[in-house]
Amino acid sequence: MTDIPLDDRGFTLGHGLFETVLWADGVLAHWEAHVERLDRGCRALRLPLPERAVVRAAAESALVAAETPKRAAVRLNWSAGSGDRGLDPPSDPRPRLTASAAALGPPPGPARLITAHVRRNDRSPASRLKTLSYLDNVIARAEARDAGADEALMLNTAGEVACAAAANVFWVRHEEVFTPDLDCGVLDGIMRREVIAACHALGVPVQEVYANLGRVAGAPMFITNSLAGVRPVANLDGRELPGSPLITAIAKAISRAPK
Amino acid sequence: MTDIPLDDRGFTLGHGLFETVLWADGVLAHWEAHVERLDRGCRALRLPLPERAVVRAAAESALVAAETPKRAAVRLNWSAGSGDRGLDPPSDPRPRLTASAAALGPPPGPARLITAHVRRNDRSPASRLKTLSYLDNVIARAEARDAGADEALMLNTAGEVACAAAANVFWVRHEEVFTPDLDCGVLDGIMRREVIAACHALGVPVQEVYANLGRVAGAPMFITNSLAGVRPVANLDGRELPGSPLITAIAKAISRAPK
Repeated sequence: MTDIPLDDRGFTLGHGLFETVLWADGVLAHWEAHVERLDRGCRALRLPLPERAVVRAAAESALVAAETPKRAAVRLNWSAGSGDRGLDPPSDPRPRLTASAAALGPPPGPARLITAHVRRNDRSPASRLKTLSYLDNVIARAEARDAGADEALMLNTAGEVACAAAANVFWVRHEEVFTPDLDCGVLDGIMRREVIAACHALGVPVQEVYANLGRVAGAPMFITNSLAGVRPVANLDGRELPGSPLITAIAKAISRAPK
Repeated sequence: MTDIPLDDRGFTLGHGLFETVLWADGVLAHWEAHVERLDRGCRALRLPLPERAVVRAAAESALVAAETPKRAAVRLNWSAGSGDRGLDPPSDPRPRLTASAAALGPPPGPARLITAHVRRNDRSPASRLKTLSYLDNVIARAEARDAGADEALMLNTAGEVACAAAANVFWVRHEEVFTPDLDCGVLDGIMRREVIAACHALGVPVQEVYANLGRVAGAPMFITNSLAGVRPVANLDGRELPGSPLITAIAKAISRAPK
């Protein structure tokens, strides 16, 4: 692991992006989707794009350094690089690529969620990106742990359901699948896209919507991210949620899809 | 300058706090106020508090390393320290103290402001703290530079005036001074407190309010931070703003107040 100089804007300002990639079955899962998202994030933050071959080599080196576990989370950081003090970036920004890998256990069981008090900032483009400014998510997760839950459901500042602290959220009503629209301040998750594609392939209607908690309450629910895949929600704010055969079918389709 | 390990949560998640202290006339200005704010931030984020003597020594070492310029900005970082991957902090968090100093020119002249599109998240406690998750401020400042301005005025998600990207904001109407209430998602600025105290000392009425842009438009305005002190605003969204003798009086009181 390389160290980060104290003047890196990723450290001083949270100015940068990251990706978390699942390494399993000898594959960096959905690699192309991750590097494409990293590129989109760079365009949004106007950072120079990384060279794909260099990013791939960093991921592979990180796996070797971690003794190539069977399952691992590979974390790639593309921080905005060194700069002078203050908010303004240097005229010639040189982002810094760093990577690490950590062995991963089997996917976790069903999640217990609570709705966090901290809200997602749907009025910032950063809420749709995987950035090094993740403190609101940290605060939300801490709220969940305090309540004995595993994960936090986050609303946006308009009170609409957005996503979980480290996952996207879906629910099922009348054989239809729903997920919040990205404009709600939702991270543009790789597994979120995979689930939407899987629904299309299965012929299951799927809608991206603006929904308050009332539209979600009591419905079968699941959360998704690159590491855990499809994870059913057992319990939201202390209320047990029913399962759904649709969730099982989507999880199966995801686990069989090409990575 | 010490480097930061790649697993520091300040880098990976923007989980941590910072302070920027003015070194001028042989004094670390408003030192007590800075370390008290750092302590308040630690309580809000449930981080262990730093030892004050250690923080002071770090600031002094940073000044020596920078060859003790006549005027400098001393930056102190209290990042959440090393942790495993993911949002959950270690059970025994050990924050990391780092410090740097950079020579500073004379205070800048009057500012040209534009109102940024990115909004402040008044629904997160982080919006009132000086945290390592500062990307929204970076985005706001970039908007200002794009428009040929010096600094961005930030509204909160309710459309109320909050603060500037790296400053608090005040305006004058009918011999009264106004500034947004902290609940608007406003950084609890050291110089903001100093200005409110100076107004009290001068017998000038000062109110902390909830105000939309209409209440501010056209009024004499100034912004404040620890490095620049009181800085008049020349221009907001392309409209020239009048000056005010009150702003001059407050700036004079601030420059004469004990540091």
